[in-house]
Amino acid sequence: MAISVDTFFLDPVAQGTLQSQIQRIVAEGILSGRFRRGEKLPSSRRLAEHLGVARITVTAAYTELVANDYLAARGRSGYFVSDTAPEPPDFPPQPPQQDNIDWSRALGQRFSGGVTPVKPQDWSSYRYPFVYGQTDPTLFDHASWRQCALQALGQKDFAALTSDYYDQDDPQLVDFIARHTLPRRGIIAGPDEILVTMGAQNALWLAAQVLLTQRRQAAIEDPCYPALRDILTQSRCRVTPVPVDADGLPPDAIPERTDVIFTTPSHQCPTNATMPLDRRQALLTRAREMEALIVEDDYEFEMSFLARPSPALKSLDRDGRVIYVGSFSKSLFPGLRLGYLVGAAPFIREARALRASVFRHVPGHIQRTAAYFLSLGHYDSLIRRMSDTLRRRHEVMSDAIARHGLQVSGRGVFGGSSFWMRAPDGVDSGALAARLKPEDVLIEPGQPFFADPARGRNHYRLAYSSIPSNRIDAGLARIAAVIEANDWT
Amino acid sequence: MAISVDTFFLDPVAQGTLQSQIQRIVAEGILSGRFRRGEKLPSSRRLAEHLGVARITVTAAYTELVANDYLAARGRSGYFVSDTAPEPPDFPPQPPQQDNIDWSRALGQRFSGGVTPVKPQDWSSYRYPFVYGQTDPTLFDHASWRQCALQALGQKDFAALTSDYYDQDDPQLVDFIARHTLPRRGIIAGPDEILVTMGAQNALWLAAQVLLTQRRQAAIEDPCYPALRDILTQSRCRVTPVPVDADGLPPDAIPERTDVIFTTPSHQCPTNATMPLDRRQALLTRAREMEALIVEDDYEFEMSFLARPSPALKSLDRDGRVIYVGSFSKSLFPGLRLGYLVGAAPFIREARALRASVFRHVPGHIQRTAAYFLSLGHYDSLIRRMSDTLRRRHEVMSDAIARHGLQVSGRGVFGGSSFWMRAPDGVDSGALAARLKPEDVLIEPGQPFFADPARGRNHYRLAYSSIPSNRIDAGLARIAAVIEANDWT
Repeated sequence: MAISVDTFFLDPVAQGTLQSQIQRIVAEGILSGRFRRGEKLPSSRRLAEHLGVARITVTAAYTELVANDYLAARGRSGYFVSDTAPEPPDFPPQPPQQDNIDWSRALGQRFSGGVTPVKPQDWSSYRYPFVYGQTDPTLFDHASWRQCALQALGQKDFAALTSDYYDQDDPQLVDFIARHTLPRRGIIAGPDEILVTMGAQNALWLAAQVLLTQRRQAAIEDPCYPALRDILTQSRCRVTPVPVDADGLPPDAIPERTDVIFTTPSHQCPTNATMPLDRRQALLTRAREMEALIVEDDYEFEMSFLARPSPALKSLDRDGRVIYVGSFSKSLFPGLRLGYLVGAAPFIREARALRASVFRHVPGHIQRTAAYFLSLGHYDSLIRRMSDTLRRRHEVMSDAIARHGLQVSGRGVFGGSSFWMRAPDGVDSGALAARLKPEDVLIEPGQPFFADPARGRNHYRLAYSSIPSNRIDAGLARIAAVIEANDWT
Repeated sequence: MAISVDTFFLDPVAQGTLQSQIQRIVAEGILSGRFRRGEKLPSSRRLAEHLGVARITVTAAYTELVANDYLAARGRSGYFVSDTAPEPPDFPPQPPQQDNIDWSRALGQRFSGGVTPVKPQDWSSYRYPFVYGQTDPTLFDHASWRQCALQALGQKDFAALTSDYYDQDDPQLVDFIARHTLPRRGIIAGPDEILVTMGAQNALWLAAQVLLTQRRQAAIEDPCYPALRDILTQSRCRVTPVPVDADGLPPDAIPERTDVIFTTPSHQCPTNATMPLDRRQALLTRAREMEALIVEDDYEFEMSFLARPSPALKSLDRDGRVIYVGSFSKSLFPGLRLGYLVGAAPFIREARALRASVFRHVPGHIQRTAAYFLSLGHYDSLIRRMSDTLRRRHEVMSDAIARHGLQVSGRGVFGGSSFWMRAPDGVDSGALAARLKPEDVLIEPGQPFFADPARGRNHYRLAYSSIPSNRIDAGLARIAAVIEANDWT
């Protein structure tokens, strides 16, 4: 690619001659890695005109740079970065400025250092990646997705989808969610009760911002989805973690005066518990008595291959008390960032206004592509294919876990894509994960899921969404061997 | 599309026989518009199995529904929603629940009712749409965009782009921004100083959240981009509007003890003023004296067709004091939602952590498509095409404004895509806009841009980004005629 003349500026306060300034710009461009070997420089006429200097000044600078082997002249074709020009250093280019800001004072709020663990980006280069929430590319119907994306890129849709929606969503996607997706969860909702979000993460964040303040009280499951605790920390509300049991969140343990209850009834994260119907009714009753709202994260409901999915808690809600969080990111692919919120219109109105301020709306092309993929039935067949595969892997996992003497902690009665595990007393799952990495095995330590990390010390999660069946046994064998071989006391 | 069996649930607390419940589910589905004429119902065998009832119960329910003309039986093909089934009412489906929540109490924070005006979604159906910020579809290189999107949907990229980036960005896009986009603004930045955002709106929001708190003080231009005031209201900081003059924000008028200064130096929004070099230096000095940070919104810099673009304020910053906001949404298309933040690494680290909590990252496919479009040179030719067209329209606008005796308020010395106008004293531009709508003309009233709406009473904005040249004269004639014909006292 040619180097654009627009990247050249004379510094109004620079020292030295014009010629030396031009030389410095080129040399710095090469040394910083911005100008690369073989790239063409602007002609001396163009650059002189652009900078408002004499052409001879530019020619002199270029000649000097050729002499220093930064540039090479190729006759009438002009000047190029020399093939033997100095290599940029391996460290990142140093901007010519100094950081003179006291950032400890200048930052009004800090958001880094939350509890959400950062997973290794290179997970797919591990042979035994028991990592959660990543797509198995062999299951995704890439061809159909591409077809739908193409359709959404067509002339007719494109004009509509490129415009600013302000605070609106793609009506075609909202219609599909209302008519087809929600009824499967027993939920009936109108368009003003649905908001499209950037994945479930964004839906939970919006709900927390709208419902909670410093003076309010939230109850969360313990253990729970770690990012939820980061979200609530930001809202600065008081948070009470409520330990879950084999049936999920126990309603009686939720403290008095709770304003908002966050729960994963269909599929507790990370223990995989499913809340029975009578407890769901009890939870709704308890919330009604306290005048609390409930935020239901219904993630992974599609992956119920061991039992029929129970209807969502929201489907039992007669008060408008439950706010429902759904997602397509898990079942399509996480990089898609597509989810939705369902709740009473006054709530959705505020969440919509907040979303408009934060980022306006989810890109139109993504919404329309998903709407096509869903309405052409590709989504349903994808879910069937994923369920079949996960069911088989679940069997392989169960057998191998038993064979290698590993211990499951949660009961996954519906299916899902992971096992919640307990290592023998004394084992620190963080240290276990670190020792397994050089063995080509990735697991997720339990600590980040718990309010008190010590409680999660010997728990870990084994996901099977991204590991082929034929590697499961060998991977679990390595986990058992590392647990066995080390002294954990 | 066939109606999925998964949308059928028996209500555990419902009254009546199983058969009547099934009939009610179907009838409600039709009456609410969820089940549409001609759609196929699940077979009686499938539905009976799904609900755990006798098949005869389902058959009896279906037979009854056929008798009532909700359904039609088509021999061996099964049951369909009848072509003469009752029409759903025109009003939205009423969910069977009551809203028993006191939302005035339940909502922790309100975000609706901000100052940002909602533009008519149907702007393109107006003959004279002087609306700002919408793409002219005739200028966009749709074919090349489609090509780049296809490339990013290819097997190789797709696997990488569908995975969860957690808090990372597409390295290819960040590399292009660092090597090609920022140098055109005189800015040199490394990858840890760049964050990809959901458009400039999202970049401004993230910066405000990281830098401001209730105890901090922001200075903004008056008039300014209305959504910025909504963003700052949410951060709850104190905000001082500083009136701009013909050269933009006057540094001396910024109050003492300001923590963050928001400015649009290259192209003041909405007056189109360009800040001269000496004032930029003075602004940096003033900020340094106060230990204030500066957030520079560099929108529309590409549209400098009247004069060479001046380098960004950030390019003069030697302290790391300036946080730079850039956007591709305006020049590509607003529905894309793609922008970026550039700033010192400690700031970017916090903005990245906040973004991760709010929505993780911008969808990978959008980032990669833009990276291809940019690096293949399509973006540059698009900018040239847009500049040429806008330059011609600017001429037509200037001539017609003079011809019809309308008065320009700001000086647009660099170009852009709008004129900032002043109507005669007494004219209320809100009322003017309302009277122009039935005349097929859309203009933007000035009030929302001002901290004190009264100051914007007779200002309005005329954008020419979405109106063809040959309609400009007639549109302006109508504006002049409506101003003339009405009594504004």
